[in-house]
Amino acid sequence: MSKLRVESFTISIDGFGAGPNQNLENPLGAGGPALHQWAWPTKTFRTLFGHDGGTTGTDEEFAARGFRNIGAWIMGRNMFGPIRGPWPDMNWKGWWGDNPPYHTQVFVLTHHPRESITMDGGTTFHFVTDGIFSALARARQAANGLDVRLGGGVATIQQYLRAGLVDEMHIAVAPILLGSGERLFADLNMLSLGYQCAEHAASSNATHLVIKKKM
Amino acid sequence: MSKLRVESFTISIDGFGAGPNQNLENPLGAGGPALHQWAWPTKTFRTLFGHDGGTTGTDEEFAARGFRNIGAWIMGRNMFGPIRGPWPDMNWKGWWGDNPPYHTQVFVLTHHPRESITMDGGTTFHFVTDGIFSALARARQAANGLDVRLGGGVATIQQYLRAGLVDEMHIAVAPILLGSGERLFADLNMLSLGYQCAEHAASSNATHLVIKKKM
Repeated sequence: MSKLRVESFTISIDGFGAGPNQNLENPLGAGGPALHQWAWPTKTFRTLFGHDGGTTGTDEEFAARGFRNIGAWIMGRNMFGPIRGPWPDMNWKGWWGDNPPYHTQVFVLTHHPRESITMDGGTTFHFVTDGIFSALARARQAANGLDVRLGGGVATIQQYLRAGLVDEMHIAVAPILLGSGERLFADLNMLSLGYQCAEHAASSNATHLVIKKKM
Repeated sequence: MSKLRVESFTISIDGFGAGPNQNLENPLGAGGPALHQWAWPTKTFRTLFGHDGGTTGTDEEFAARGFRNIGAWIMGRNMFGPIRGPWPDMNWKGWWGDNPPYHTQVFVLTHHPRESITMDGGTTFHFVTDGIFSALARARQAANGLDVRLGGGVATIQQYLRAGLVDEMHIAVAPILLGSGERLFADLNMLSLGYQCAEHAASSNATHLVIKKKM
């Protein structure tokens, strides 16, 4: 059965998945990049961005699992780019570069229609304007039996959690305070939604938790 | 300089310091006791409640540091007992038993006056009705140069954080979801308040973080 999975999503001690004031220079908001200090040094993330080497161990194991068995991605528009409102410039193709690190079909949730964009390396961005259920149906079809990975941001993940559609989440808790921003679990009752912590492990950089639906 | 310290305060992955529906049977609310699974097996907590043995290691180190150099305690009324409104029964002396695990003077914040109660083992409960500053001044005097430990609950800690009076906090993050309850960092901007994470360590049961005021 194809699962919908959140992977390597990091929150601060005070619960924020992104800092305040996200923009083109600060996709993760003020202070946000510090969330991912556990991820950048790992072999998986270094390879993803074209570098050699990288760490192995707990952080790497969790980074790597996020890319296993993934046949398609869904993301919120903020993860594609910082644009709000209608698309001002069709030549700008997201902040992931010519060869984005997805290598699958990627379904971007937006209120503003746009033609699909085929990038290098097998990534195609599709822009879905008819909601989360439609995006999931299309992603599942594209994944062809593999799992669908749900990227951020917080608002996108919250919508899928509320609808009970997320099967599994790997959350990392980074040892930093962000003070403000978008709180992953704001106004969400994860117990009522049927989730529990199924697995946890810690490195010196982060605590990793796997949250699953109760059977 | 005598510090005001929060120690061994545990929150869930989703940020709650206590579960919902606190009452006499469930001082920590529904699901709340699971927060402290890291603490009960430690030598410090076992000794505190009159048992032999107990674990050593990371969890024990953090449990033990919470009792070092402490000369007085402050706690919210909910940590003394589940009573709301005027005191109905002066014979009920809190849910800590005849020999409470404090062994110092303890200043209980309440809106309802009550005579001090001297317990076995050196614990005296004082009931402070004129606010958090007064409680801290009295606790500092009682501590006589040692630090003051600030117990829970969440509302009490939040008041002292907002007033900028907490010098140091040891927070444990337990690998559980509580779903609802009292959220420690709700409506608090810890960065604006001048705090940062100064130290972190993880065991297989919890992640421990020490939060301090920036110098």
